[in-house]
Amino acid sequence: MMLAAFSASAQQRNNVAPSFAGAVEDFKPNATNQLGHQYPMVNSQGAVRAQLRAPQANSVMLDIGGVRYEMVKDENGVWTGTSAPQDVGFHYYQLNVDGASVPDPGSIYFFGAGRWGSGIEIPSADMDFWQVKNVPQGSIVEKYYWSKATESMRHCYVYLPAEYDKNPNKKYPVLYLQHGNAENEQGWSAQGHTGQILDNLIAAGKAVPFIVVMDYGQSQNIHLVGQYAPAQPAQPAQPGQRAAGPDAFQTVLLVDIIPMVEKEYRVIADAQHRAMAGLSMGGGQTRRITLANPTMFAYVGMFSGGVMSVEDINGAAGFKQTNKVVFMSSGSKENPRVMEAAESLRGIGMNAVGYISEGTAHEWHTWRRSLYEFAQLLFK
Amino acid sequence: MMLAAFSASAQQRNNVAPSFAGAVEDFKPNATNQLGHQYPMVNSQGAVRAQLRAPQANSVMLDIGGVRYEMVKDENGVWTGTSAPQDVGFHYYQLNVDGASVPDPGSIYFFGAGRWGSGIEIPSADMDFWQVKNVPQGSIVEKYYWSKATESMRHCYVYLPAEYDKNPNKKYPVLYLQHGNAENEQGWSAQGHTGQILDNLIAAGKAVPFIVVMDYGQSQNIHLVGQYAPAQPAQPAQPGQRAAGPDAFQTVLLVDIIPMVEKEYRVIADAQHRAMAGLSMGGGQTRRITLANPTMFAYVGMFSGGVMSVEDINGAAGFKQTNKVVFMSSGSKENPRVMEAAESLRGIGMNAVGYISEGTAHEWHTWRRSLYEFAQLLFK
Repeated sequence: MMLAAFSASAQQRNNVAPSFAGAVEDFKPNATNQLGHQYPMVNSQGAVRAQLRAPQANSVMLDIGGVRYEMVKDENGVWTGTSAPQDVGFHYYQLNVDGASVPDPGSIYFFGAGRWGSGIEIPSADMDFWQVKNVPQGSIVEKYYWSKATESMRHCYVYLPAEYDKNPNKKYPVLYLQHGNAENEQGWSAQGHTGQILDNLIAAGKAVPFIVVMDYGQSQNIHLVGQYAPAQPAQPAQPGQRAAGPDAFQTVLLVDIIPMVEKEYRVIADAQHRAMAGLSMGGGQTRRITLANPTMFAYVGMFSGGVMSVEDINGAAGFKQTNKVVFMSSGSKENPRVMEAAESLRGIGMNAVGYISEGTAHEWHTWRRSLYEFAQLLFK
Repeated sequence: MMLAAFSASAQQRNNVAPSFAGAVEDFKPNATNQLGHQYPMVNSQGAVRAQLRAPQANSVMLDIGGVRYEMVKDENGVWTGTSAPQDVGFHYYQLNVDGASVPDPGSIYFFGAGRWGSGIEIPSADMDFWQVKNVPQGSIVEKYYWSKATESMRHCYVYLPAEYDKNPNKKYPVLYLQHGNAENEQGWSAQGHTGQILDNLIAAGKAVPFIVVMDYGQSQNIHLVGQYAPAQPAQPAQPGQRAAGPDAFQTVLLVDIIPMVEKEYRVIADAQHRAMAGLSMGGGQTRRITLANPTMFAYVGMFSGGVMSVEDINGAAGFKQTNKVVFMSSGSKENPRVMEAAESLRGIGMNAVGYISEGTAHEWHTWRRSLYEFAQLLFK
């Protein structure tokens, strides 16, 4: 019985590696640990060391960066294992106990990779820009609102700059900022540290104060109803609902989110004071939505989310005349085309900016840096 | 080796029970499940059924309400187990895999019992009062602020009623609302559903609009520094810091939190528009802090947090003259003295209210109901 279970699972154990043997022994508790927990730890190489007490387990592994590192049990039933060095920045990870993938009880939890689970922060030389500092603090507002397009209450987060409450007659520009595939509306504040990046930039005079709206954009989970439902359902639907097509997020953005924001907050409601950006899938949505609504957003940001071409822009009447900035970024480990794409757009007179995040891949540190750069270009 | 691990752990397996055999088979996915997850489920009896795929595990248990229920493995390596019926309302729980206590990957996570981990919601007949409804929505604001007493950035949540942004010249009363032991500043919004309770009450005309401030009150983790540090450290301290005494939360409340709130928000800054309440430990803090500052808070609420006596009030000069409501509540399963205590206080002319939450113990549904009742008494 036990052997059968082992041999069945052995076939699934791809990318299994022994605990990393070359680690420098300068591990420290991680910034994202639960209060009072020593593990997980990270060392100066960016290696991650996890620990779990599981006295009766047959196998415990640390699953990070696509590799499962074997952990080793001591005489007290405590398993310890170390990963190879990871890129700087934030990574999702999990533990695997006898075939069960579970969150590490030592870490706090984030929504990404389609689940609430563990995350870890590999310190970077430039991490200061997203730390909580004693500067004037904006706030992250959790807001529910009624959605006509889905006939349900939806949920978003809104960053309001520190000065917002002090200027009851002032109106502000807005950035609509979207997460990636299998993430949600909390990603940009929790993993992305949007509040800290903006507070620090505004305090330093590097960005003008603006509002940021972070909503949920996973279109296959957005069930449009009534007049908003696509005519041809893509999938079987729940009773009374049609299945969502790929543009369901565009519908809720235009029908619900932007009107709600422009009603609930003091917003300058024109294209020159409206920006859209997103990471990965959210960058693709930004590209499609801003091209399909070419006179609606003057500022466009795609972070690891593809590029816009000259043909795209020439095919979207009014886009070029409306646009003030097209920003396209990528991690240096993503084999990016963003610099050439920006050069092409500059060739037709666009203010296009390419940005490469050095030493990072398709992960949150790329996108934090992208927001930091993009925010400085907005509404000026 | 395997046998040794088993026998060592056998001694720790107190309160182990077989999977509950008497369950009615009408289980439904829980309201607090991760998106797309069928398990955990709850049935009409309030029994909880959990499931975990762990093909190589020797033992998997569902740990809820102080009992670990044995789960049973099927031919696919999927373990399933069912608890006995639980009280209505919210409960923390976890899974135990071969001796490791881990969050259930099927649930979303909450901070309580000293850790981020799984929670489950047993539906109650009265749960409508804390649901998200299409009524005017307030917001839950996440706010960082500088604390002089700890020389660090602290973090709180502030509920602003729906009308707050619509009335830029109106000032509001404030309730300072505290969590219990081993919980944190997110408990009242996440588990307690403060935002929904207040939005629904205000929309129904049952409560006046007010602000709620939810901060972190675990005094042993609040490290006062400089002039605010206690003269006699209670514990070994970190370098440059003195250890916190039991009143560290009182210090940050008076030195940092109330002044910050009265500066950052439009607040009526007098005792008649200031309330304090808390659950369990937070109720005890409310009792001590309001008695020690007897002319500061006109409204006092203790939810499963002890009682105030006639002697307490007679010993706190000015308390009786300032106070408008003393509210004391308890779950019916807590063997409460709150009704007699309220009667005693009414005997000296106080407006004292006792409240018993029927069918619940020392858990969140008691405290949601308590907030619902208390909020209707405030600032009228």
